[in-house]
Amino acid sequence: MEIPSSLLSLVEALRCLPGVGPKSAQRMAYHLLQHDVEGARGLASSIIYALEHLRHCQWCNSFSEMDVCSLCSNVKRDRKLLCVVEMPADLMVMEQTQAYSGLYFVLMGRLSPLDGAGPKEIHLDRLLKRVDDEVEEVILATNFTVEGEATAHYVMEILKGRGLHVSRIARGLPVGGELEYVDSGTLAQAFIERRYL
Amino acid sequence: MEIPSSLLSLVEALRCLPGVGPKSAQRMAYHLLQHDVEGARGLASSIIYALEHLRHCQWCNSFSEMDVCSLCSNVKRDRKLLCVVEMPADLMVMEQTQAYSGLYFVLMGRLSPLDGAGPKEIHLDRLLKRVDDEVEEVILATNFTVEGEATAHYVMEILKGRGLHVSRIARGLPVGGELEYVDSGTLAQAFIERRYL
Repeated sequence: MEIPSSLLSLVEALRCLPGVGPKSAQRMAYHLLQHDVEGARGLASSIIYALEHLRHCQWCNSFSEMDVCSLCSNVKRDRKLLCVVEMPADLMVMEQTQAYSGLYFVLMGRLSPLDGAGPKEIHLDRLLKRVDDEVEEVILATNFTVEGEATAHYVMEILKGRGLHVSRIARGLPVGGELEYVDSGTLAQAFIERRYL
Repeated sequence: MEIPSSLLSLVEALRCLPGVGPKSAQRMAYHLLQHDVEGARGLASSIIYALEHLRHCQWCNSFSEMDVCSLCSNVKRDRKLLCVVEMPADLMVMEQTQAYSGLYFVLMGRLSPLDGAGPKEIHLDRLLKRVDDEVEEVILATNFTVEGEATAHYVMEILKGRGLHVSRIARGLPVGGELEYVDSGTLAQAFIERRYL
């Protein structure tokens, strides 16, 4: 049984998506061809359109259709504060809190030597250029994973060397959290980082 | 924060893939744009190419780039046997056994009233047209799931009404299987369907 080459190529192409192995790529290909031809067409054109129109904002490094994104060009934002996050999705959840009025820098990744992600991959040169301006404080909001912590530490060392105020978002119990249900690592950290009232 | 519309469209378009929710669609979009622009381009063109070139084989209903696929037009295959499977992937694993030399009919699905899949969705009209030829026996090789079993039963009733020999692939212990490790449903079935020697 020869599988048609165009079907084979589609299955192979779908495997470029993160978390998609041979079996799910095959399932996706059959689904697109059999049940959602319109969706398949839409997916192809969305990819092409996005690749054509999206670039990195010159200021915050996030995806934008303009040279400088709408957030960075908003004059109401506080230009003295710069929040560093790993991914655009992190920027989005940060914005949803409505607790922050400064600007952002998106690393588009994290330090991860095993995956070959060093200072270049997190666009450190662009961050350093960015903080030369009117920035007074850099708030590190990378994830509290091993890699996120390492990234925060690394960026902190370099920024401090340049005489900047650097802070890290707090670890502790979630709002509404009960001690009984929190993991001991978080509880220990909440104890160590207790605030004096 | 306004998300660029081309990014939003891409995330939305990725959700047409089976098993992809909002979070993984977002992750996939960022991955394509940030880390695999080549893969994204390849995916878009593979989709377009496959949609243009693939059609259903007029005989077996599976995907093919020709009107009749290479398997159906192979003169060495036994035209008296027709094996009915749910999906092209099932046809492929059946072929890998090298135990079957007849032809196939691919339903491209299974009866599933809850999902709105009735006789039309499993292309029953095409199957009935197909068995009018020189077919002597139809082997039902749908899955042994509730829906696969119901499909087999339904197709069996209709084909038997037309005086055809209909068979179902066997249930039982796997080759190399040990009684101790087999679930009791399978063992019970293997007992009921025991072969007299």
